[in-house]
Amino acid sequence: MDRIDAAHPSEAALRHGFAPDLFLSDPDLIAPLTRDRTGGYTGQPVAVARPRSAAELADVVRRCRALGLGLVPQGGLTGLVGAGVSGDVDREVVVLLDRMSAVRTVDPVGFAMVVEAGCVLETAKKAADAEDMLLPITFGSQGSCRVGGVVATNAGGFNVLRYGMTRDLVLGLEVVLPDGRVWDGLRTLRKDNRGYDLKQLFVGAEGTLGIVTAVAFKLFPKPTRVETALVGLRSVEDVMTLYGRARRACSDLLSAFELMTRDGLALALEHGPDLLDPLGEACPYYVLMELSGGGAVDLSALLEVLFEEAGDLIVDGTIAQSQAQAERLWLLREAMVAAQSRSGPYYRTDVSVPLAEIPAFLHAAFARLAAELPDGRPIAYGHVGDGNIHLNVVPPASWSIEPRRDLFRAAEEVIFTTLDRFGGSISAEHGIGRSKKRAFMERVDPVTLDLLRALKSVIDPQGTMSRGRIFDL
Amino acid sequence: MDRIDAAHPSEAALRHGFAPDLFLSDPDLIAPLTRDRTGGYTGQPVAVARPRSAAELADVVRRCRALGLGLVPQGGLTGLVGAGVSGDVDREVVVLLDRMSAVRTVDPVGFAMVVEAGCVLETAKKAADAEDMLLPITFGSQGSCRVGGVVATNAGGFNVLRYGMTRDLVLGLEVVLPDGRVWDGLRTLRKDNRGYDLKQLFVGAEGTLGIVTAVAFKLFPKPTRVETALVGLRSVEDVMTLYGRARRACSDLLSAFELMTRDGLALALEHGPDLLDPLGEACPYYVLMELSGGGAVDLSALLEVLFEEAGDLIVDGTIAQSQAQAERLWLLREAMVAAQSRSGPYYRTDVSVPLAEIPAFLHAAFARLAAELPDGRPIAYGHVGDGNIHLNVVPPASWSIEPRRDLFRAAEEVIFTTLDRFGGSISAEHGIGRSKKRAFMERVDPVTLDLLRALKSVIDPQGTMSRGRIFDL
Repeated sequence: MDRIDAAHPSEAALRHGFAPDLFLSDPDLIAPLTRDRTGGYTGQPVAVARPRSAAELADVVRRCRALGLGLVPQGGLTGLVGAGVSGDVDREVVVLLDRMSAVRTVDPVGFAMVVEAGCVLETAKKAADAEDMLLPITFGSQGSCRVGGVVATNAGGFNVLRYGMTRDLVLGLEVVLPDGRVWDGLRTLRKDNRGYDLKQLFVGAEGTLGIVTAVAFKLFPKPTRVETALVGLRSVEDVMTLYGRARRACSDLLSAFELMTRDGLALALEHGPDLLDPLGEACPYYVLMELSGGGAVDLSALLEVLFEEAGDLIVDGTIAQSQAQAERLWLLREAMVAAQSRSGPYYRTDVSVPLAEIPAFLHAAFARLAAELPDGRPIAYGHVGDGNIHLNVVPPASWSIEPRRDLFRAAEEVIFTTLDRFGGSISAEHGIGRSKKRAFMERVDPVTLDLLRALKSVIDPQGTMSRGRIFDL
Repeated sequence: MDRIDAAHPSEAALRHGFAPDLFLSDPDLIAPLTRDRTGGYTGQPVAVARPRSAAELADVVRRCRALGLGLVPQGGLTGLVGAGVSGDVDREVVVLLDRMSAVRTVDPVGFAMVVEAGCVLETAKKAADAEDMLLPITFGSQGSCRVGGVVATNAGGFNVLRYGMTRDLVLGLEVVLPDGRVWDGLRTLRKDNRGYDLKQLFVGAEGTLGIVTAVAFKLFPKPTRVETALVGLRSVEDVMTLYGRARRACSDLLSAFELMTRDGLALALEHGPDLLDPLGEACPYYVLMELSGGGAVDLSALLEVLFEEAGDLIVDGTIAQSQAQAERLWLLREAMVAAQSRSGPYYRTDVSVPLAEIPAFLHAAFARLAAELPDGRPIAYGHVGDGNIHLNVVPPASWSIEPRRDLFRAAEEVIFTTLDRFGGSISAEHGIGRSKKRAFMERVDPVTLDLLRALKSVIDPQGTMSRGRIFDL
């Protein structure tokens, strides 16, 4: 804890003149901020700042810049790529936005809301819901992640198929820049073609170009009807055919289209004694579908027509007859995700390929994993409509951490090099952070890398913000 | 024409070593490229290049850079802000992409297509349609504009409400950079969070950061059912209330929600002797609505429910019973737009405000126009769901060009300063180009301007691309 010691010269210089409670000083409060949810990244910050406003944060940024300190914004630490914790060698100040967490406005005419960066995603979603509107961003950690992190990572999730990534839902931003100025782009205009769309710079930049302090989101009418179904299919080719028919037959009201394999479902069933095999017949592939809509649209009629039209593809299926049944279907998917870590660390990917390449990619990856890593248990699931597959490898329960790490390295090599053949992305949702930087740097083409470095160098010439994330300078 | 003369030293140096037919030399072919559709901008380029590939264009860019010449890409010249024609003093080479106009791929599994920049928008739309998919970008000049220009201006149009701006539909880009390198970001991945999303830089940059040579677009299922209705309302407040109810009642299947005023409709009826007043009763405001969907969705049932629920708002209304009737309703809107120019040039805006501010903005602007410019006839129409109003002023038919120009200047002052009070944008759809640069520079805040200049300076340090558009350096 000695680097938090106020006796450290730059630490004293950092605090000088600021309100004493601007910085967190209780080591017990700081400790949980030094380790991300993967456990793979830890780091002791120089200090932890909790600004009350963009202006106060701007003062902190200018001070850090003068002292040669870096800054890293920290949200719910749910990003899983090691971006949000301080690097020990980086001399960084961690910035918590938890004092800037207000829902400022919810606009039921303009279908828009303005939220501060420290607002927990679920709180923002509830505020929209209270006005009969939907903030569509939906994923597992929504109860702990904060909207600043959601924007900084361009988060995805279950509803991307229908509503797009976070980027598509951002109407405006307020950002504290690396030079300590505040950029006010916090607008709710739906169309605005005045010059370059600067907010795009900061969405998905993982904090490397500035710290987002407030966000204007696009909202949607709250769906008043939801239909959920689980179907079993013979092949991943059939899954993709079903996807194309489902989008057409359901008038693009699909809000989720999630792939599971039999291996994944079996893993969930092994670890969840309360769970039942949902269909009469075991199938190699399953799709969990959700349709949502409002008004007088008869979603169950749409599903029935689809099931009739897709009788050649669907081996067996079930449509939830109640919300409780729908929740039980989703529970299978959640249990599968949770079951992977029951016996220790496992290898997790977050990759994407063009949709038409999903079958070929999965076949190639499964074949190589079976041949080269026969001890690992490959589990694949994902947001098929987004081309986004979580292709993971679970080691035998008995393995210690060392052979597991070797397996992780080998699995990454197999999966990423297979992915390269299909024009895929090594990071569909979670970004690069620190954990994927090496793999990214190995693959990025020189023109792209030059452009990334050019943007960083002109917006943050001193390298003040989130040093060492995404790429090396 | 002497600047096209091959005897001009830099013109000879420009051509040296290239295939003779790379540059257009027939003055009759060049003449129409020197004037945009507004007629307000004309300019003689140093040369007109027609590259066959990104690599050939990259050669031209490097040559221009070496000779200190600028480049400006030219599409269908339908942008209306003077961006696409060469500036006489700028020593620019105009780049036509018409030899790069192929539809490369249409992917019915991934709902994506790859098109070259010189492809006419309507050609791309038809190629998607042939595979039962929709490229949603829809506007008046779609038969002549080219997709490179659509991307460079982040074009809007009728379907933004449902499908978003062009930016929301771009999955990938290929761009020739100002340094003569080709950036290959031509991917169809739906989710890809590897580093900054560089394609966003070039969408809406009006050619100032590079020349787009190919585009990957997101596609949608082709709607198989369309319902069109025209309703009359008492006030613009009622229009906005109807908009909120319509989005909810129609399960967000609204694909157009267009405002017209009685003055606008009256102008259309005056100039179109074949047109009939569509409703029994004259109303101060009208909305032209379109719902579109597929599968078994009963859109007419949705509209009927909406009309029942909105009985307190709707004075009178008609639902098209056939495609021919729907076309007649759209004809009223088109006739209104066309009628404005029947008696000579008129003042045209393309502004946006937050949706909730539309009524207050329109009341304030109409009041000031009536008081300060009583000779002008204000006409307002637009894409209300996008907060996008075309608030125009038509001068008396008898006026000559000089008093018209004075009126245009005065109308701009009235409308833009009113807009400033409501946090509006002086350019919702068409960009800044050259015609709105002064008004933009007067309003842009210093932090935004510094960021715009920083991006331009680092991507195009020599100022090679589309000099003098959007902002001054």
